[in-house]
Amino acid sequence: MTASIGVGLIGTGYMGKCHALAWNGVKAVFGDCARPRLVHLAEMTQDLAERRAAEFGFEKATGDWRELVADPDVDVVSVTTPNAFHADMAIAALEAGKHVWCEKPMAVALADSERMAAAARASGQVAVLGYNYIQSPLMRQIEALLREGAIGSVNHVRLEMDEDFMADPEALFYWKSEASSGYGALDDFGVHPLSLLQTLFGPVTKVFANLSKPYPDRPTVEGTRRPVETFDIASVLFEIGEGISGVMALNRSAWGRKGRIALQIFGSAGTIVFDQERFNELQVYSAADRQSLQGFRTILAGPQHPPYDRFIPAPGHGLGFNDLKIIECHELLRRIAGEDARVIDFEKGLEIERAVHAMAQSHREQRWISV
Amino acid sequence: MTASIGVGLIGTGYMGKCHALAWNGVKAVFGDCARPRLVHLAEMTQDLAERRAAEFGFEKATGDWRELVADPDVDVVSVTTPNAFHADMAIAALEAGKHVWCEKPMAVALADSERMAAAARASGQVAVLGYNYIQSPLMRQIEALLREGAIGSVNHVRLEMDEDFMADPEALFYWKSEASSGYGALDDFGVHPLSLLQTLFGPVTKVFANLSKPYPDRPTVEGTRRPVETFDIASVLFEIGEGISGVMALNRSAWGRKGRIALQIFGSAGTIVFDQERFNELQVYSAADRQSLQGFRTILAGPQHPPYDRFIPAPGHGLGFNDLKIIECHELLRRIAGEDARVIDFEKGLEIERAVHAMAQSHREQRWISV
Amino acid sequence: MTASIGVGLIGTGYMGKCHALAWNGVKAVFGDCARPRLVHLAEMTQDLAERRAAEFGFEKATGDWRELVADPDVDVVSVTTPNAFHADMAIAALEAGKHVWCEKPMAVALADSERMAAAARASGQVAVLGYNYIQSPLMRQIEALLREGAIGSVNHVRLEMDEDFMADPEALFYWKSEASSGYGALDDFGVHPLSLLQTLFGPVTKVFANLSKPYPDRPTVEGTRRPVETFDIASVLFEIGEGISGVMALNRSAWGRKGRIALQIFGSAGTIVFDQERFNELQVYSAADRQSLQGFRTILAGPQHPPYDRFIPAPGHGLGFNDLKIIECHELLRRIAGEDARVIDFEKGLEIERAVHAMAQSHREQRWISV
Amino acid sequence: MTASIGVGLIGTGYMGKCHALAWNGVKAVFGDCARPRLVHLAEMTQDLAERRAAEFGFEKATGDWRELVADPDVDVVSVTTPNAFHADMAIAALEAGKHVWCEKPMAVALADSERMAAAARASGQVAVLGYNYIQSPLMRQIEALLREGAIGSVNHVRLEMDEDFMADPEALFYWKSEASSGYGALDDFGVHPLSLLQTLFGPVTKVFANLSKPYPDRPTVEGTRRPVETFDIASVLFEIGEGISGVMALNRSAWGRKGRIALQIFGSAGTIVFDQERFNELQVYSAADRQSLQGFRTILAGPQHPPYDRFIPAPGHGLGFNDLKIIECHELLRRIAGEDARVIDFEKGLEIERAVHAMAQSHREQRWISV
Repeated sequence: MTASIGVGLIGTGYMGKCHALAWNGVKAVFGDCARPRLVHLAEMTQDLAERRAAEFGFEKATGDWRELVADPDVDVVSVTTPNAFHADMAIAALEAGKHVWCEKPMAVALADSERMAAAARASGQVAVLGYNYIQSPLMRQIEALLREGAIGSVNHVRLEMDEDFMADPEALFYWKSEASSGYGALDDFGVHPLSLLQTLFGPVTKVFANLSKPYPDRPTVEGTRRPVETFDIASVLFEIGEGISGVMALNRSAWGRKGRIALQIFGSAGTIVFDQERFNELQVYSAADRQSLQGFRTILAGPQHPPYDRFIPAPGHGLGFNDLKIIECHELLRRIAGEDARVIDFEKGLEIERAVHAMAQSHREQRWISV
Repeated sequence: MTASIGVGLIGTGYMGKCHALAWNGVKAVFGDCARPRLVHLAEMTQDLAERRAAEFGFEKATGDWRELVADPDVDVVSVTTPNAFHADMAIAALEAGKHVWCEKPMAVALADSERMAAAARASGQVAVLGYNYIQSPLMRQIEALLREGAIGSVNHVRLEMDEDFMADPEALFYWKSEASSGYGALDDFGVHPLSLLQTLFGPVTKVFANLSKPYPDRPTVEGTRRPVETFDIASVLFEIGEGISGVMALNRSAWGRKGRIALQIFGSAGTIVFDQERFNELQVYSAADRQSLQGFRTILAGPQHPPYDRFIPAPGHGLGFNDLKIIECHELLRRIAGEDARVIDFEKGLEIERAVHAMAQSHREQRWISV
Repeated sequence: MTASIGVGLIGTGYMGKCHALAWNGVKAVFGDCARPRLVHLAEMTQDLAERRAAEFGFEKATGDWRELVADPDVDVVSVTTPNAFHADMAIAALEAGKHVWCEKPMAVALADSERMAAAARASGQVAVLGYNYIQSPLMRQIEALLREGAIGSVNHVRLEMDEDFMADPEALFYWKSEASSGYGALDDFGVHPLSLLQTLFGPVTKVFANLSKPYPDRPTVEGTRRPVETFDIASVLFEIGEGISGVMALNRSAWGRKGRIALQIFGSAGTIVFDQERFNELQVYSAADRQSLQGFRTILAGPQHPPYDRFIPAPGHGLGFNDLKIIECHELLRRIAGEDARVIDFEKGLEIERAVHAMAQSHREQRWISV
Repeated sequence: MTASIGVGLIGTGYMGKCHALAWNGVKAVFGDCARPRLVHLAEMTQDLAERRAAEFGFEKATGDWRELVADPDVDVVSVTTPNAFHADMAIAALEAGKHVWCEKPMAVALADSERMAAAARASGQVAVLGYNYIQSPLMRQIEALLREGAIGSVNHVRLEMDEDFMADPEALFYWKSEASSGYGALDDFGVHPLSLLQTLFGPVTKVFANLSKPYPDRPTVEGTRRPVETFDIASVLFEIGEGISGVMALNRSAWGRKGRIALQIFGSAGTIVFDQERFNELQVYSAADRQSLQGFRTILAGPQHPPYDRFIPAPGHGLGFNDLKIIECHELLRRIAGEDARVIDFEKGLEIERAVHAMAQSHREQRWISV
């Protein structure tokens, strides 16, 4: 990983800042790559772009993202704008010969996601999605445990993802309750646990979903109430692999849950339990332990779980959410350098989108759908 | 609750001993009832019956349960034999004018459960099922919180029940893997979380289920392998009340889970979380708390959660599983005395059975079933 | 353990009821002893004694405990009155040729404890103290682990005991704040963790203590304030065995703690952690585990941890506080039958009292005291 | 905070990398300061310095730290070398008119710490120590809660710090077991919990300590065994403020503990519990809560706990250990800009050192020592 790469960043909100921090930190953390050049930053206005460029350390700033895409100094484009813009920006960047690091999900409409995957294929460039939760050291540890058969053959999986940013029934109606934003928890959220499933077990094969609304309507600025069009809750049955049954429950109106992505993996020789709210911990039960000492082990992340060691040499000190993005950035650089990398590229991302749309179809048609 | 009651006990296994301990302790714990007379105990053989009668403090012993049912000194019959015998014994006891305390579930076949409910109705006697988990002080506290609106309107519920007594794939085939024993986790297990649902929210109205087998076959004593006929895993979507969506996941092959019955109740103003493996604790999140201090409270059972106070005057010391049965026994005595009681009688029990059979039907027909 | 034993119970408060429940349940739980005869119960008044005798199932009742002690049908006397009465009652019972089961601590004054131990020695009867926390199945498991060297050589121990019944600074002054009741947390509380230490490691050899008062005074019924004479908080350094260092912290004004007795045992090959508030769980860390899987195991009590199996055949269902007293009662019966028993008798109890008084002396003299 | 500051970094080990990451990220995270210029990096050899300078993004590299200190482009010097070098380097930098950011502890000998504080005083420059644990958002929340009286008057404090990097008795003897490295856990570790105490309550006033060795000797490379000269375990009683009693237990041989710094603060109206191994969580018990709902709240760090919001806009996603160093770096910049800052400067650091040396003296003299 030798050549220094020119970075363009479109968007500087929640995820935009995460990307900026990752681009700032990746070389100092990992050491084994060239220091990325922070070349160009695009925002809604020239003024905002300039302020953010100064903050994030980018050389040029623009109020027109197409300028950034056209910039020959830019090799890779971070797309961190609202979902509605992903397709146009990612495709333009790929067509301009840039690599793309696009935030999840791909797009609201399946057709757009398909166009994105096609553009990536056609371009031959690297196109990677921002599924940061697959990057945590203990998620890799889970993968390693599964591969080596530490819990035997997996036969059942449960996933939950819950947050409470939509939990207040009297919070004002905003775009996340509009049908144009998508289905609701399913695409807003579900893609995250699905990215973990993908990484651990491959694509979902069969789904049955029930979407529901905790609140039928919400107040508007005008003092009226407007019907909610999206589903903040999703309950899904699924199958993966060779007859592994699963349950996935999503709720973005779940008071008290802040960043919960809970995973329970049951196997013929043990069980693995994980919760993203405590992502520096992993629980493993092994039926191979001596009987009077059998119990769930709480394993703290440490240098024995790479790439934790690149951040901190001592165990149990804890990585943070933003560190996951630094790891993701490093994996992107590895992919660009032609190395083996742990990423969800547009092809795999498309499989996740297909699963999501199949779930929505299942809800409408009230039957199992094969993905 | 004045008159002393004559007790007959059929069966002295796991639950039989629980009943015996409850009958032995209920007066000393609660004080407000007459001391039950332990009159008659039935087991498979006269010899075993006599040994157990000595242990459990019963006056008479018999190898023929019909003798016990016919005994005029017996006022109430505890039926704790394997499920296949529940219907015959309970009905005989009711027809002989006895009250009945029958272990859950009612019966394997729905028709038998219906016969049991009909017999109870016809007899005018008290007929109660052994759904002990509804009796824990903190389960009552949950009910009180829901009633007073502490978490607002409930809009989503998740239930899990997991144990690992069927988790070893190389354990010998036994009757729980035979179709004649029922569906598997669904009726063996599912009735427990359903009893909690029943108590907290009333009957389930709509179900969709997926049953699965972790292991296709098991070894036999003869050294061959025999196909497993029941489903150790069940994944269910359901609705209760007015549009409350739910998910229930059951697994009796869940390594590491020993007595987990996990409950998550999401409301418009908070969330309640409970796990039977730590049934002296309750988690409550209230959106009414000051924002910087919002978090799940871990509430320890104490005298402020009746009838904990009848067992121990100090908080945080912990009730045990057998104590739940003592509470259940006391509720039974209250019902017999014509008082308000917290029980699942044969009528409510039948609703649970109907839900279970609807789930199995849903699995076969792969569609939503209204209960 | 064949002969049926005649039981006398003095006192029916918190611990009196615990003893009564234990005497009621011990035979049904364990089976291997004769059913105790509940012969005589003493309370402050004849009337109260009669009511309690009816509740607890005792044949005779008296308002004069000396009558009970003189009753030839009584073989063993449960002494569960306030600490100030322990010495007189226990000694009288021993001198009358009864076995004694006396609640902890022995007495306020060391001289009284010494008299009790002398009386026990002289009588040849069994004299046992109510240190129930040593009886939990997982405490036995800890002992077994230590014995087999599962965590190597122990080199450091930490103990905490905290409750909050004295935490409210505006609660009325009552006898627990009077010097005549003892030192405060040290003897009221400290004897419990010391009983665990005793059982696991033998007597404490050296102590240094600092006693403190969270509140200098408390309101009285008369509307004035009265200085607090006892120490609700105690902080102790100690040594046990061959140079094992220890820390013990006690607080009976610890808001939020209800029955916490926390134990951390550090060894050369692992660590054991226990908290009585979750006494059906045990945490063990083993340095012998594979490195990437090292973590504290949470072990749930189950039938593999005797005598859990005598109560419930399934793991993870949980014993309660009162069950510990049933186990203690059974150990007492074993000791009376001349069998090996896990008890803290008056000799060992005296060692605990000596440690407590040495701690108080250390506080006064501000120096290490050898016990 | 406008002027860009020139940074020199001495040392690139564990803490050196932390400082480098902080200097790289502080501007992008906080935005409100000028981007620091990474000017000069010093290591043991020119070669290593150059490699690290490339990794960490520094312009110049040197094998002689005095060159860095003399560099007029350097405004602030990060000192992250082994403790033995802190005094010389920090003093040289201060005398050269640089600000200093020095890792903890100040020095092995108290005289050296005093020289450092004197140099800082004389220089008029900013001199700050790397006590990162005081920087976590929830530690600030604890401070806010104490200030507003959320748990009433504090009357008792317990601290524990445990790791297991010295736990293996057969690990080779190395410099941390030599007396020249200091006392052992006390100065290696104790300064961290003491920094929290300092920040929350001011200086410790009185101490009593007991130091102990889990292992008398350790193997050497030569195949012999060498006596251990330092104390891996320390048990301390102390007082702070107006009669607040405390206990501090330290163990760097504590198998299974990886970064535990546990804090229990007891007050007249509640209790606060914190553990650095889960530093995105805080436990608070309030006696003001309704009685049936009283319990420890688990509060997840979120944007309502500044400066969490500068890292992540969503709650519950978790900061990492390295983020604490970014916050510390930002506080340093604020202090340099003359603003209010949350730092432990050399004056406060000296108070911590005095407490540590008083503890060691107390151990030697076996008596209470006033600090």
